Amino acid sequence: MNHYGAALLGRVRSTRPLIHHITNTVTINDCANATLAIGAAPVMAGAIEEVAEMAGIAGALVLNIGTLTPAQVDAMVAAGKAANAHGIPVILDPVGVGATTLRTESAERILNECRITILKGNAGEIGVLAGSGGTVRGVDSGGCTGDPIEVALRCSGRWNTAVAMTGETDIVCGNGEAYLILNGSPMMERLSGTGCMAASVVGAFAAAGDDPVKSAAAALIAFGLAGERAARQSAGPYSFRTALFDELASLTPETVSAEAQVEQYHGI
Amino acid sequence: MNHYGAALLGRVRSTRPLIHHITNTVTINDCANATLAIGAAPVMAGAIEEVAEMAGIAGALVLNIGTLTPAQVDAMVAAGKAANAHGIPVILDPVGVGATTLRTESAERILNECRITILKGNAGEIGVLAGSGGTVRGVDSGGCTGDPIEVALRCSGRWNTAVAMTGETDIVCGNGEAYLILNGSPMMERLSGTGCMAASVVGAFAAAGDDPVKSAAAALIAFGLAGERAARQSAGPYSFRTALFDELASLTPETVSAEAQVEQYHGI
Amino acid sequence: MNHYGAALLGRVRSTRPLIHHITNTVTINDCANATLAIGAAPVMAGAIEEVAEMAGIAGALVLNIGTLTPAQVDAMVAAGKAANAHGIPVILDPVGVGATTLRTESAERILNECRITILKGNAGEIGVLAGSGGTVRGVDSGGCTGDPIEVALRCSGRWNTAVAMTGETDIVCGNGEAYLILNGSPMMERLSGTGCMAASVVGAFAAAGDDPVKSAAAALIAFGLAGERAARQSAGPYSFRTALFDELASLTPETVSAEAQVEQYHGI
Repeated sequence: MNHYGAALLGRVRSTRPLIHHITNTVTINDCANATLAIGAAPVMAGAIEEVAEMAGIAGALVLNIGTLTPAQVDAMVAAGKAANAHGIPVILDPVGVGATTLRTESAERILNECRITILKGNAGEIGVLAGSGGTVRGVDSGGCTGDPIEVALRCSGRWNTAVAMTGETDIVCGNGEAYLILNGSPMMERLSGTGCMAASVVGAFAAAGDDPVKSAAAALIAFGLAGERAARQSAGPYSFRTALFDELASLTPETVSAEAQVEQYHGI
Repeated sequence: MNHYGAALLGRVRSTRPLIHHITNTVTINDCANATLAIGAAPVMAGAIEEVAEMAGIAGALVLNIGTLTPAQVDAMVAAGKAANAHGIPVILDPVGVGATTLRTESAERILNECRITILKGNAGEIGVLAGSGGTVRGVDSGGCTGDPIEVALRCSGRWNTAVAMTGETDIVCGNGEAYLILNGSPMMERLSGTGCMAASVVGAFAAAGDDPVKSAAAALIAFGLAGERAARQSAGPYSFRTALFDELASLTPETVSAEAQVEQYHGI
Repeated sequence: MNHYGAALLGRVRSTRPLIHHITNTVTINDCANATLAIGAAPVMAGAIEEVAEMAGIAGALVLNIGTLTPAQVDAMVAAGKAANAHGIPVILDPVGVGATTLRTESAERILNECRITILKGNAGEIGVLAGSGGTVRGVDSGGCTGDPIEVALRCSGRWNTAVAMTGETDIVCGNGEAYLILNGSPMMERLSGTGCMAASVVGAFAAAGDDPVKSAAAALIAFGLAGERAARQSAGPYSFRTALFDELASLTPETVSAEAQVEQYHGI
């Protein structure tokens, strides 16, 4: 994965894929800037009148239900279907699923009506969508019921998608393989939007790659590495934020290759 | 108040209350990060289909009409009623009230249909809602008609709520007592969203405390102290911004206890 | 232009005009803070129920279609007509025009139904609106067909408005004159929202000045200078961002006078 991730970062930078987001109003700016910093091009477009057309010129579609409304979910489904028809990867970040009925029903609707390529969530969210149970308080994970790796695999099987479960150790699985990623920093929990930004970076890597599981794993390695390096320069959550975007922008394939901490999981 | 404020900050950090916001699209990210930095957990959820359910698991509800629409005000009223039924404090930030008819009517509707625990605004906004007159230009205060303390007391009596009037000296009153808070920095006026962030911190303290007036006063002391400390490290409004969030996160009960500048007002 | 720009910056600071924005949810916070930093007062208000009233107390109106919806475009047209009736300048930033049908039709509708004072866009967007062709990928410029100065002049003539075409060299034209502005930094392309912020600064200068072409040119000089100075202190896009706002706030008329790099174009 170290060399795969390094090569894929280079490919993001050289191809600069357009990443279409339909996302929340809290971290929409962070997602745009994370996409730019990693080397891709963001576009945020949520009106149902234009989402299919925009998805049709994009390299990946990122859906995030952090501040969902029923009208926005309609637009997400329309964009997801257009992305499926167009053959580009679709990333879903089911923010807060399990916390309210609207979130749970909307995430399941999107998963039922669109083909999701990569489902990225915290342990609580993935537990809820695996059907095995998870605790979500607002948008924070209270963990999943059972072994996280088994929950991620179960969720992947249930929805026929790659799953990226973020946490102290990130778990990425699907298509018969799984990776554990140790890169990252506890500072990432102290800043709003790091989960959303991670999904943007996953979108960029998925657009540049052709293997959803490996692309998602490489993206979380890159994002985690930027977080580690930023944390060393930070006096608190906002100096961390400044450093995080600077590090995303200056991250090199060489660093990914040398500092990735990833293990393939052989227990499947 | 010094020891009360110190203890309450400790309690925010140890209980990490969930603060449900229905707020504007300008400073929604600042509010989320201010809530996190002070030690609470933010959730932003505004769809009328989920606000009552979300308010039902929260520790406080913060309403802010900075970029209101009639549909959003409907959601605020629904959330406010659920919060009242659930017994959690409701903070209203009536941004720009008096500048347009929609803002004035919407703020009064929320105050009439929900029980507001703490009404936080600038002198112009509180003057308008006191019924004694205030000047609001866009979202900036042009001041209130008459003595600010009397206006705050009058507003508190009119709506049966604690009032937190922010300004060079913050005035917090209600339930037969009033406090004057001198902490803060002129830099706070040069950054968008400091008023909104103050309301988030008030929400966190109100969720952790049981006395709305003292909680609001303690929150404005804490926020003002973070502002003072940040201003000393700043070359301009954005280096101030970085330092403000870092200082909110590193603020200790000891600092609150030692550096709070607050006086009880005995003229009621 | 050097002395004109210097004087106009002084006038923004001394009159602090209220700049009413109806803008996208990605960079709305950046626009508010850029407006504050340059010395004006921002207000963001987009509900159709209040936009005419808010435009009626403002010094300029800035419209930006970055995350447009049909309902938002209705509000923009209502606000634009109120601004026209009130006699204040209206700035349009046609973000992503050409990328989707909704964007193209909406920009043209606004231009047809309101009198736009200054149309600010990248080369692709201005090319599309000139009718001579431009390439827009998401919200990024792929350039215009033909000589950029001729395209800007053609667009200005077609819509009877001043045009500010941003790029490595900014071109500002209208009313029989044109300016080329060399201030700026490549770092501005690496941060989301710099184009939107430029429109906010144009709004502030247009509110304070009485010549749309010269005001827009002076604004882009000021914004470009802040960008140059910020880039010298930056390790990446987010330390650039912090410095950009600090430099906007500390920019002096003396610096504008001494460091403006602007040429009048005599080829009209």
